[in-house]
Amino acid sequence: MNFSEKLEAVVKEKNSCLILGLDPNPDKFPAQFSKDAKGAQEFCEAILEATHDLICGVKIQMAYFEVFGSAGIKAVENLLKIAKEKNLITIVDGKRNDIGSTAEAYAKAYLEDGPLGCDSITVNPLLGTDGMQPFIDKCEKNDRGLFVLVRTSNPSSQEFQGGKAEISLRIAEKIEEWNITTQSPQNQFSSVGAVIGATVPEKMLGFFREEMPHAWFLCPGVGAQGGSLEEVLNVRRNGIGVLIPVSRSVLYASNGKDFCDAARKEMQKMFDLQKT
Amino acid sequence: MNFSEKLEAVVKEKNSCLILGLDPNPDKFPAQFSKDAKGAQEFCEAILEATHDLICGVKIQMAYFEVFGSAGIKAVENLLKIAKEKNLITIVDGKRNDIGSTAEAYAKAYLEDGPLGCDSITVNPLLGTDGMQPFIDKCEKNDRGLFVLVRTSNPSSQEFQGGKAEISLRIAEKIEEWNITTQSPQNQFSSVGAVIGATVPEKMLGFFREEMPHAWFLCPGVGAQGGSLEEVLNVRRNGIGVLIPVSRSVLYASNGKDFCDAARKEMQKMFDLQKT
Repeated sequence: MNFSEKLEAVVKEKNSCLILGLDPNPDKFPAQFSKDAKGAQEFCEAILEATHDLICGVKIQMAYFEVFGSAGIKAVENLLKIAKEKNLITIVDGKRNDIGSTAEAYAKAYLEDGPLGCDSITVNPLLGTDGMQPFIDKCEKNDRGLFVLVRTSNPSSQEFQGGKAEISLRIAEKIEEWNITTQSPQNQFSSVGAVIGATVPEKMLGFFREEMPHAWFLCPGVGAQGGSLEEVLNVRRNGIGVLIPVSRSVLYASNGKDFCDAARKEMQKMFDLQKT
Repeated sequence: MNFSEKLEAVVKEKNSCLILGLDPNPDKFPAQFSKDAKGAQEFCEAILEATHDLICGVKIQMAYFEVFGSAGIKAVENLLKIAKEKNLITIVDGKRNDIGSTAEAYAKAYLEDGPLGCDSITVNPLLGTDGMQPFIDKCEKNDRGLFVLVRTSNPSSQEFQGGKAEISLRIAEKIEEWNITTQSPQNQFSSVGAVIGATVPEKMLGFFREEMPHAWFLCPGVGAQGGSLEEVLNVRRNGIGVLIPVSRSVLYASNGKDFCDAARKEMQKMFDLQKT
């Protein structure tokens, strides 16, 4: 099975399009966790344990681990291992990007069976097709996936992505060109997905779905940032094709001793709202 | 001194605008080095030892170290320490990018005194000003620097950066707005620099210099990729303001036992061509 087929299988089996976003911010840890790489790993493990049956995957936000240097990256290696043992889809959110042999090295780092090997990564497409190709090639070869930034969820996103320039639209067109599918009739979606902020206007979500009928949409920004869950769910195709990362609202639902219960309660609420 | 003042001092003292690019590709290592993180570190150390008096700084290409996971990141920590002991300017080339608290975490990882703390990093600006601001704030506070992708050296660079959309131009305008200088009369340049491929047409280099009179230009692509050293040197202002990474032509000048001599000879050739 290629990445999109694996993803479809897990989403259907779990009846969940929810992705647990691991963004461990030491300032917000419950008191029992140390404010270092060890604390970050243990905190993430506890939240993962409390919510894993309600989610289809985890998204590891590299920045929060790079803060701790090599010890933080060791924590990423451990968390990837734990997530795989729970049959969760793994997404490394590093927004990596480069050209030529450097892009090849990033693809090798994340889309092979090395210490940081995972199912899929987020990538920034600014450098164009020849910066993307090494990632796409590795996905085709090793059945891995990509989520390409199309329109991010932040207020300045239109500055370079939108406006007259319409870079988002040009990236969307490319994502359909970069399509990775198999001949299987079940394989409706491509292994090259798109990151689209849930905060964009509803019409724009629909527009991007028309432009990219084969892309899984990873839609951050539901909840804290103001994105609407309902609007995102509306751009599913045949009940799938959308992934919703849930991060801070679950991780920091409580910083008391009940943080696991609070995290689960919050994730359960999201689960009930999205289940089909 | 802020970052641009430190950079100016080192460039003038060494009479060199050359940056040693550390892109350790195990397939090209001389036989005595193991094809792992340890080998990568030792190989980079040997090249650094052979060339450090001819360069003003080092640029560490993160992708080649991320391949080895946490062990590779440990090698980065060690190489940063060695480069600092030699009073070289350190650039971590990771093209990091994100928004809000995640961008803050990347800034904290690289632009503070943590395990991966360095003088400056490369950043991808696609996410816009609010994705850039946490990096800029950290540079102002801690006297660090940025090199923002404006126009990369690869064939597809015009796909999203150029053409009708002119994203490169809009980024260039922003870089002048994001200006970080001090009141010192010597401080002609900003700590927010630009990455511009040496492969762009000569007129475009001159155009970007007019648009960004205060930006240090980091210009990869001289040599192997076909960029002209002379054309890049022409966009210096008062003899400075340009940094030239030299990577593969030096690292892999020979893969025999004479690799250090060959690397030095190649760097010396570049040094002689650029000295004022």
